[in-house]
Amino acid sequence: MTTDAQALEILKSINALARFNTFLGLEIVAATKGTAEIAIDWNPELGQYAGFLHAGVVAALLDTVCGFATVTTTGPVLTSQFSTNCLRPAVGNRFIARGTLIKPGKSQCFARGELYAQYNGGEKLVATGDAVLLVT
Amino acid sequence: MTTDAQALEILKSINALARFNTFLGLEIVAATKGTAEIAIDWNPELGQYAGFLHAGVVAALLDTVCGFATVTTTGPVLTSQFSTNCLRPAVGNRFIARGTLIKPGKSQCFARGELYAQYNGGEKLVATGDAVLLVT
Amino acid sequence: MTTDAQALEILKSINALARFNTFLGLEIVAATKGTAEIAIDWNPELGQYAGFLHAGVVAALLDTVCGFATVTTTGPVLTSQFSTNCLRPAVGNRFIARGTLIKPGKSQCFARGELYAQYNGGEKLVATGDAVLLVT
Amino acid sequence: MTTDAQALEILKSINALARFNTFLGLEIVAATKGTAEIAIDWNPELGQYAGFLHAGVVAALLDTVCGFATVTTTGPVLTSQFSTNCLRPAVGNRFIARGTLIKPGKSQCFARGELYAQYNGGEKLVATGDAVLLVT
Repeated sequence: MTTDAQALEILKSINALARFNTFLGLEIVAATKGTAEIAIDWNPELGQYAGFLHAGVVAALLDTVCGFATVTTTGPVLTSQFSTNCLRPAVGNRFIARGTLIKPGKSQCFARGELYAQYNGGEKLVATGDAVLLVT
Repeated sequence: MTTDAQALEILKSINALARFNTFLGLEIVAATKGTAEIAIDWNPELGQYAGFLHAGVVAALLDTVCGFATVTTTGPVLTSQFSTNCLRPAVGNRFIARGTLIKPGKSQCFARGELYAQYNGGEKLVATGDAVLLVT
Repeated sequence: MTTDAQALEILKSINALARFNTFLGLEIVAATKGTAEIAIDWNPELGQYAGFLHAGVVAALLDTVCGFATVTTTGPVLTSQFSTNCLRPAVGNRFIARGTLIKPGKSQCFARGELYAQYNGGEKLVATGDAVLLVT
Repeated sequence: MTTDAQALEILKSINALARFNTFLGLEIVAATKGTAEIAIDWNPELGQYAGFLHAGVVAALLDTVCGFATVTTTGPVLTSQFSTNCLRPAVGNRFIARGTLIKPGKSQCFARGELYAQYNGGEKLVATGDAVLLVT
């Protein structure tokens, strides 16, 4: 059985192995069994044409946090399907994604994530995402 | 009215403005009114923990090609929603995404994309994506 | 400005106009500005081949509750896109869907719903759904 | 190995078992290994508040045709996830859904469907859907 402290260690090791996460500057902020919180600082290299956070990065953060929330309680997983709803342009100094494992399973899991943009001390929900994950 | 040649020019200019696309090494391969084809070469910086193309990059390519297929016939757009189905692990030397505008609209458009991995001269469909886009 | 009492009245009138809702036996249980709760009793006419609630009915309930949560604060809406995650086979005596408007907007809104199956006095989350809605 | 003729017989038997399909008046029009075509005639009992085909019925048809395209080549399946894009109000005398199995698998399959409305002899694409299905 994983403890919350182990959950955090597991995520830190997986994160260090994922080169794309390193490029994004992705930090593991917190984890418990069944939840994860990750963050990145804004960096102009992550922008789309108008200078907002690229929808691909929005998706990457939400998919990653769903996967991370899940692997705190399972072995390795691969994403089968994910849906992203972009509520507002993603503009901020820092972006925080929070994920929750909604339904664990032996072969198939469901997780959900929310992405918040921090700007001038405030925080706004900018996108939500849902993932179906296959335990490999 | 946009011509196919103009469509290609429009996409090349937008692509040059999107810093994240530059990081990905994203090339505009082809475009007509209502379709777009983009590609990237594999690069280990785009990997997830097992060395496959990161699902966030898969999403970024599909979202981008849906947006590009759309802007060939409209003004600027923002993604509202997109769904990605990951059929197989994305492993290859080069990745090609092909997008089609399925339903243009004054305020809301629908587009669809397919992502192919090239490996040893062959090509395999690895993911599909659907986007709802808002004309801004 | 709508009050919570008006929200309930609005939903009851729309529900009475939707013939398919009548067929489903759909009841408006509760509503406030930005939330809605609806329910149906199990009925074998709503089953798929194995006798579970048909995934189409699961989708209908989630889509409807997302639309209902939204129209408590806007004029009429049409669904543009919706995603349904089926966590468990939908088996029960009664099904309750709860919806929340996550992001209102002048032309585009986002809502989320959860579907619970009641069985032997207990309640289980069986599906979740997200909708993008266009204000008409 | 299933033949195309067997595919059609399999779908007809499953369809007869699903009470909700009977209510919808759902007919199996055609099937091959990996594809299915189903149809319903318009019936006011299937309407939403404005008299269009209810989005829940749109979803039911797309989910069903994805499942049917899949079971022509596998054993029984349950839907895990499905996404529906509603391109236009679904208005017509008859509705035809065509489904294709995009990626078969031992435990997880992906299928896609398109819904057409027939009206005055013409046919229009009104919605598309994607499903992730679990082989049970």
